[in-house]
Amino acid sequence: MGGDSAPDVVLDGLELAAERHPQARFLLVGDEALVAGGLARRKRAARACSLRHAPERISGDLKPTAALRVRGSSMRVAIDSVAAGEAAGVVSAGNTGALMALAKIVIKTLPEIDRPALAAIGPSARGDVVLLDLGANVQCDARNLVEFAVMGDAFARAVLGLTNPTIGLLNVGSEELKGDDRVRNAAEVLRDSHIGAQFRGFVEGHDITAGTTDVIVTDGFTGNVALKTGEGALKLMRDLLRQVFTSSVPARLGYLLARPALDRLREWMDPRRYNGAILIGLNGVVVKSHGGTDAFGFAHAVDVAMDMVTHGFNERIRDGLSRLSAAGPRFAPASR
Amino acid sequence: MGGDSAPDVVLDGLELAAERHPQARFLLVGDEALVAGGLARRKRAARACSLRHAPERISGDLKPTAALRVRGSSMRVAIDSVAAGEAAGVVSAGNTGALMALAKIVIKTLPEIDRPALAAIGPSARGDVVLLDLGANVQCDARNLVEFAVMGDAFARAVLGLTNPTIGLLNVGSEELKGDDRVRNAAEVLRDSHIGAQFRGFVEGHDITAGTTDVIVTDGFTGNVALKTGEGALKLMRDLLRQVFTSSVPARLGYLLARPALDRLREWMDPRRYNGAILIGLNGVVVKSHGGTDAFGFAHAVDVAMDMVTHGFNERIRDGLSRLSAAGPRFAPASR
Repeated sequence: MGGDSAPDVVLDGLELAAERHPQARFLLVGDEALVAGGLARRKRAARACSLRHAPERISGDLKPTAALRVRGSSMRVAIDSVAAGEAAGVVSAGNTGALMALAKIVIKTLPEIDRPALAAIGPSARGDVVLLDLGANVQCDARNLVEFAVMGDAFARAVLGLTNPTIGLLNVGSEELKGDDRVRNAAEVLRDSHIGAQFRGFVEGHDITAGTTDVIVTDGFTGNVALKTGEGALKLMRDLLRQVFTSSVPARLGYLLARPALDRLREWMDPRRYNGAILIGLNGVVVKSHGGTDAFGFAHAVDVAMDMVTHGFNERIRDGLSRLSAAGPRFAPASR
Repeated sequence: MGGDSAPDVVLDGLELAAERHPQARFLLVGDEALVAGGLARRKRAARACSLRHAPERISGDLKPTAALRVRGSSMRVAIDSVAAGEAAGVVSAGNTGALMALAKIVIKTLPEIDRPALAAIGPSARGDVVLLDLGANVQCDARNLVEFAVMGDAFARAVLGLTNPTIGLLNVGSEELKGDDRVRNAAEVLRDSHIGAQFRGFVEGHDITAGTTDVIVTDGFTGNVALKTGEGALKLMRDLLRQVFTSSVPARLGYLLARPALDRLREWMDPRRYNGAILIGLNGVVVKSHGGTDAFGFAHAVDVAMDMVTHGFNERIRDGLSRLSAAGPRFAPASR
């Protein structure tokens, strides 16, 4: 029931997902009266789905604390099914804050972890890059950053299929003395940790799109701003190019000639290909689809969830975290 | 003596600046043996300049604390001339950390202000946008953010020529309850301040290039990451477009046809047009030119310094800060 064009986008996305993952079974949760008819019309989705009725829905502007009190919402029933072990993961296009709050309380964080993080994949000059945290934790200490690195490592292995992903810690400069105590302490612990060989030290904002490392770790405030700033810059460029190519007859003709190559670029940068932010650090897989995406984007969010389930993502995280705590890292008191 | 191609870029930039600002006098500081010959060959610069010998130079990788101990460096002598009232401002393409440290200690901060900030202008869909702090303060409290807003207001009036610039506070969401205590406290104080009518509340990363407000305020950690992330995203797009337009014969032809419009776009986005970050909050004008820029970019940094001097920039800041402290804003204890 979540997202700008629910339930149609979700149903169309499921139709695509059911084709891509013929072995998967989906538990579709929503208001039966609004969903059943549409589901019946999508043959593949109908065959792969069980429909579970949930009379309520969480609106996009409901505060997380209020969302926790709504009984029988589609989001709550779906999350309950993960907590009960009926489903391996949940994909939602609904209210992000509500999804994070419900998932944390109902599915619960992994015992080894302090706080879950929101992670996503973006394009870079050297392939896909994992960025986290994207806003689950606006305030973080060194311990959180180190845990994010361990989770980002597991994520890059599971979803990008990398064997030894490189990891960078976002900072205002690449020299060891740059930044605040928090990032310097996290860097120190990471250098001595079991992922020390993958850790490349500090990276800067431009390293995200340069693809300097496979995983880039930061606090939720900075990560959220960086993600949206990068998206905004790309959008500005797309809008300006649209103006350029409609500004004159020769420019229009030029566009037509370069169109196959421009289309490949557009496809490669397509935000739908990067849809699906993951709330990691929980006892189950939780994927947030963008509320404004279409069926293609929603299906991609399902792909991400499937990758995480089939690649034993949470087992990797638990393993990484227990190796980290066995090493007994030294964290300075929180400073920022 | 600072920057990647000193002193040639500086001298060529001065030649351009002397043409644009025929009323200006420049005090050129550097190693006479390395600079005098080149200056003599640039007729306009030579007429507008006095040359002052400084035997030492601050290298690009020298730590700020070490830079403070170098006697007779060109950077130090130039900054001394501002502190002594001989020059109204200083423009340097050298070591940023050293410039900030020297300027703070020698020129000193305005008495009303806690900490200076680094500000710059960038392109947006709705005209130029002022962003600060870009890294002078990696840790900031609510009071710093409010002072940055007052300084950003004065900067937008002086350099962009706006009469009532709108101001936004960077956050992870635009709703009043988003973010940490620090940004919520700063927003509360700004709403009740003398610039309250210009304050538009919280803005997000994508609002920078959307141009939602004329001034965007944030801490130095987030601002530095946002600036570099945005630059990185634009660079990725430029590199990919270059690949697109050389990928086939029709694409090359298409480029030639659209070239006049693409050139206008490139000119509009030209980083050299945005060169010149300003360290604001000091008893003088201090402008940092990018170390890798060319003569055109360096001349732009001189333009920025000239704008600030001729528009009584520091008087505006002092006025704004005294109105702020007269109102007796309520700051909560620092939390981040």
